[in-house]
Amino acid sequence: MKETKKKLKELGEKVLRDIEKKENPSINIPIRSLSNIVYDEKTGMLKLGEKSSKRFFFHVGHAKKFMQTMLVAAFCKQLLDENIHTSLRDLFYALKRTLPNSQENTFDEQTESDPIVVDLEVMLDVLREQLHLNADVRGRVVGDVIIRDRGDRINWAKLGSGGWAIPSNVEDVEFKKVKANYIIVIEKNAAFERLHEDKFWKKHKCILVTTQGQAARGTRRLIQRLSTEFNLPVYVFTDGDSYGWYIYSVIKYGSMSLAHVSDRLGTPNAKFIGLTISDIDKFNLKNFTIRAKDVDIKRAKEMLKYEWFKHPAWQKELKLMIKRKIKAELEALSGRGLKFMTEVYLPEKIKNKDFLP
Amino acid sequence: MKETKKKLKELGEKVLRDIEKKENPSINIPIRSLSNIVYDEKTGMLKLGEKSSKRFFFHVGHAKKFMQTMLVAAFCKQLLDENIHTSLRDLFYALKRTLPNSQENTFDEQTESDPIVVDLEVMLDVLREQLHLNADVRGRVVGDVIIRDRGDRINWAKLGSGGWAIPSNVEDVEFKKVKANYIIVIEKNAAFERLHEDKFWKKHKCILVTTQGQAARGTRRLIQRLSTEFNLPVYVFTDGDSYGWYIYSVIKYGSMSLAHVSDRLGTPNAKFIGLTISDIDKFNLKNFTIRAKDVDIKRAKEMLKYEWFKHPAWQKELKLMIKRKIKAELEALSGRGLKFMTEVYLPEKIKNKDFLP
Repeated sequence: MKETKKKLKELGEKVLRDIEKKENPSINIPIRSLSNIVYDEKTGMLKLGEKSSKRFFFHVGHAKKFMQTMLVAAFCKQLLDENIHTSLRDLFYALKRTLPNSQENTFDEQTESDPIVVDLEVMLDVLREQLHLNADVRGRVVGDVIIRDRGDRINWAKLGSGGWAIPSNVEDVEFKKVKANYIIVIEKNAAFERLHEDKFWKKHKCILVTTQGQAARGTRRLIQRLSTEFNLPVYVFTDGDSYGWYIYSVIKYGSMSLAHVSDRLGTPNAKFIGLTISDIDKFNLKNFTIRAKDVDIKRAKEMLKYEWFKHPAWQKELKLMIKRKIKAELEALSGRGLKFMTEVYLPEKIKNKDFLP
Repeated sequence: MKETKKKLKELGEKVLRDIEKKENPSINIPIRSLSNIVYDEKTGMLKLGEKSSKRFFFHVGHAKKFMQTMLVAAFCKQLLDENIHTSLRDLFYALKRTLPNSQENTFDEQTESDPIVVDLEVMLDVLREQLHLNADVRGRVVGDVIIRDRGDRINWAKLGSGGWAIPSNVEDVEFKKVKANYIIVIEKNAAFERLHEDKFWKKHKCILVTTQGQAARGTRRLIQRLSTEFNLPVYVFTDGDSYGWYIYSVIKYGSMSLAHVSDRLGTPNAKFIGLTISDIDKFNLKNFTIRAKDVDIKRAKEMLKYEWFKHPAWQKELKLMIKRKIKAELEALSGRGLKFMTEVYLPEKIKNKDFLP
């Protein structure tokens, strides 16, 4: 928190110095458009390139955004000073007002304030969570883990059928005890509940996380922290379709819209445990597939071209899906019996190290 | 569980008796269409009327559905016998197959198996959770409460910033200690996090629940159980618009599509704490409203006609919204400062008993 405060203060001081030197006050912002997003082979993650642009105060096209940037920065400084957190929507409302003696609003819509927050993240090289701005929440976790959060000692092994609701901000979570051989990240809550009820995490000494769809930032950050701080392999378990595989790629490499924070949200050592199209034959799921929709096929064709899906194993699966026009959901495993996933599919996959990179 | 098993067994025995008597096997199913949904003034909830229809085995139009009903009933019996739970989607996959020597599938789509589950609920007068079928999950809770769930003792006061993730099935949750004067049910997670961070529940001795949008079944059932078993008032806190108010009405009265289980999911003594359109003037939120969309207005006009919104106070708010064409989100309160909700709005509303019925 001290570090982030210092960065915000330095931003203000830089602008002050410009004013004292009677120069046009300006700030420097890395460019976030597609042209400046690169796949970094070394780290295995998406990141921003070197291009940046300047935002000036005395500039007809920049003045309003400059003012907005200063407003948001000052607001975040205040959040840190008072040690409270809030959401992007609350920030918008808290800063929305009509400028005195004018018809001009500071912000008209949240679509104006959201990008300013991202500007700040990129400019200062911090996460929005470090600016005390909370993101959406989704995701639950169980396992033989004890954490400390806001002064409470929480045992993830003793939370009944519910599990721990992953908050939007996990920066301050302290891990007191982590007894696990690996982490399984599950796209769907129903599969998570099945594994939890079957005590899979106990029997196989692992941590179970459900993302409940595309992983929220808090959930991605939690997976990354557990994986790097305790050197745990991460196996991602999604539907066998382009959408599920994209969820995997976001957990592993980061997303294009958040390329500037991949290094703090991505988990490059994550592996894909299933479902694949090959699994359909391997595990006799043919009767439980569904026809892929046009949008699935279109998505798969796009993904064929992504650099981070260039591995032959992925090219094979994507092409199989396009050719056979089928997909398989996690629930397809229930076609082989409700305990098939717990007792056959996952143990076999893990034993044979049958993962995609 | 014993009760539900007995009901399933009786259903099978009834059909067996028909066969032994050489009669056309049949089952009796209450009708769930709008024409049979009534608002019960006495209990203050939506419920099903008296109309029912018969489903026959030897009947061209009924035979397939009859077979499907028997399949689903047998499957649920098995879930109860083995004491495992599953989802509606898994049920569909587990029962989907091609009948021997035919091209006919037991089920083609989940849209065929879902209504059969509802038929069973209505027929046997049980919740799908009692048939061990889990619904979607959403919702979190904090407060000075200790529960027992699946053998774990869980203290809702000691779960850090995350809270307890409400599971889909809360039938077996045992309440060991409940220290609260009332329950606040909050539509949005951001407002829940604000109140949680401000320790509102500690200071005001209450339980905080967030539904994260329309309340999931598990969350509705949990609110009802807490409210009735511990005689706690329930205050529902949503956006000031027709969608938010509808969320409130579903928590209180039940929904039209689930009218047959209102008595086990509804909380008729719930009250509405805000936001109302009148709040906009009362709390000086004029600068933080947004323009209502056509769909909001249309919805409000429909709701004017619902019997359960006939109270003059509700008619007034609905008409105000239609006339002024504005709405106010929970985050509008942040326009008055981030702690306005915690320190001014809610305490004043509760002190003045400023609720809508």
